[in-house]
Amino acid sequence: MKKLINDPFDAVDEMLEGFVAAHADVVQLAGERAVARRMSPASKVGLVIGGGSGHEPAFLGYVGEGLADAAALGNIFAAPSPDVCLDAIRVASTGRGVLLAYGNYAGDILNFGLASEQAAAEGIETRTVLVTDDVASAPVGETDRRRGIAGDIIVFKCAGAMAERGASLDEVERVAQAANAATRTMGVALSPCEVPGAGRLSFELAEDEMEIGLGLHGEPGMRRGPLLSADETAAVLVETILADLERPSGHDLALLVNGLGGTAQLDLYILYRAARRALEAAGNSVSRSLVGNFITSLEMGGASVTVTRLDDELAELIDAPAHAGRFTR
Amino acid sequence: MKKLINDPFDAVDEMLEGFVAAHADVVQLAGERAVARRMSPASKVGLVIGGGSGHEPAFLGYVGEGLADAAALGNIFAAPSPDVCLDAIRVASTGRGVLLAYGNYAGDILNFGLASEQAAAEGIETRTVLVTDDVASAPVGETDRRRGIAGDIIVFKCAGAMAERGASLDEVERVAQAANAATRTMGVALSPCEVPGAGRLSFELAEDEMEIGLGLHGEPGMRRGPLLSADETAAVLVETILADLERPSGHDLALLVNGLGGTAQLDLYILYRAARRALEAAGNSVSRSLVGNFITSLEMGGASVTVTRLDDELAELIDAPAHAGRFTR
Repeated sequence: MKKLINDPFDAVDEMLEGFVAAHADVVQLAGERAVARRMSPASKVGLVIGGGSGHEPAFLGYVGEGLADAAALGNIFAAPSPDVCLDAIRVASTGRGVLLAYGNYAGDILNFGLASEQAAAEGIETRTVLVTDDVASAPVGETDRRRGIAGDIIVFKCAGAMAERGASLDEVERVAQAANAATRTMGVALSPCEVPGAGRLSFELAEDEMEIGLGLHGEPGMRRGPLLSADETAAVLVETILADLERPSGHDLALLVNGLGGTAQLDLYILYRAARRALEAAGNSVSRSLVGNFITSLEMGGASVTVTRLDDELAELIDAPAHAGRFTR
Repeated sequence: MKKLINDPFDAVDEMLEGFVAAHADVVQLAGERAVARRMSPASKVGLVIGGGSGHEPAFLGYVGEGLADAAALGNIFAAPSPDVCLDAIRVASTGRGVLLAYGNYAGDILNFGLASEQAAAEGIETRTVLVTDDVASAPVGETDRRRGIAGDIIVFKCAGAMAERGASLDEVERVAQAANAATRTMGVALSPCEVPGAGRLSFELAEDEMEIGLGLHGEPGMRRGPLLSADETAAVLVETILADLERPSGHDLALLVNGLGGTAQLDLYILYRAARRALEAAGNSVSRSLVGNFITSLEMGGASVTVTRLDDELAELIDAPAHAGRFTR
């Protein structure tokens, strides 16, 4: 893949320098690889998010008012180090505890876990909510094995809004769990990405193929098949997501269509239309919508559909004001 | 290119349907191919923007509070029809006149011009500001021949904020002209896009080449050359932009790095960092920044750098609140 970078070894640090300079009104560096909210209330539950780089604007784009207090970044598609996680926890702590919310990946769990132990030794209480929205990554009944993908955004938004209200650590943890439990995502990949300097593509697909259920780092999907139309793709994704819920109809939903980085925004709105129609045809309504590149895989082609069953509380939290580097409402 | 669409013939209308459904809190349809702000003050100067589709989130993503009152859309990379332009003008008119702001392309000028004549016959006064920020499209001294690219966003933002304040048509026209006069853009293309159904790529580039100065629709650039690093690319773009100003230093600048649709956000921040360093090394400061996919060319690979010389008025207008489907601050 052609890239606009310098030395691949420097890509993450140069990106981070650029990000902090571009969004200096809302964020600042907190150590080498953590970004913190510039102005935070004196006392609130902290929200720390994080994960690998290469998913921009995730994760640093969601640090700000009404969202996360800090983000810990790793190398591209790699977990942040324990030291970086600890930097993020420390800067997010104001004495009322810190919620860690991140995708369910072994490396992140290990490193955030080590940082949590150190934080506890320093008197900082943490709780952890793992995002597990990817229905393609494990079957029903094994949701603990599911990965976190675009549903991250919904969980971060709800937890961030709850923390901003001044809620307790118990309450922030509760809504983060509720948002995760209410959220399902499934995606398709059309074309691969290349980790800078890797010299090889993340996977290979024939010109007339797509991968259904592919993960954010090129993890294998549920199946490979012929390239489907937007309507056909949406039908497969929505059908799988709805089959995963206790009941497939009667829900008021948030619908997020996320581009993986290399797919046209035109296509995302066509997919959104198709997914919404499929959800409505199944007897659901869609009252909150997000369309765009929220969590990417470098320049990977493809998109995902995320559905969240709303209740009054989650709807209010999604609607609450937020002002981060790459998310304002 | 692999796409998530249905019948290519339906792509624009399906995208439009998806967009209006996703952003129904801020926009509504106004005719077949125009989008209008849902709630507008009873009396204000109208701002109408528009152009071809395929540039999403431009142009419809910039309709909303503090931005445009309506957008007129054409087919992909084609001007909106006169009827659509007239629909947009009519819905944006509250009796205080309407400013039309769009990129300097022959088709748009023709069709918005015909619509303006009809609007005049209906008693609606219009003025027109053509965006001409692309320094690669014509030399100094022939700025009237320059195309409008990512500088659109700056002009729309300033004009929209001025209109929202209740300013007169003269004043809104004045700041739109001032924003355009203060703004320069230059871009590079790394890889082509494909208009849905066209069956061919917009251009061809070797694996080790880039096109410097390429337009938003695949118009030829200033030159084709070897693929440069982000720092080298930024140096070329910034040098050309600064050489185009009356003086190259001592400015307070807004810096917008725009992705063309298929380039990783990681790369955009690395390019932003390099461009900012180059601008600062030349004796300028950067006080306002935007990084992301603001006006794309479907899934084209590449990015552009936009620089706006700020005075107090333009800085205030850029900072003013806005709430559109795809631009909130």
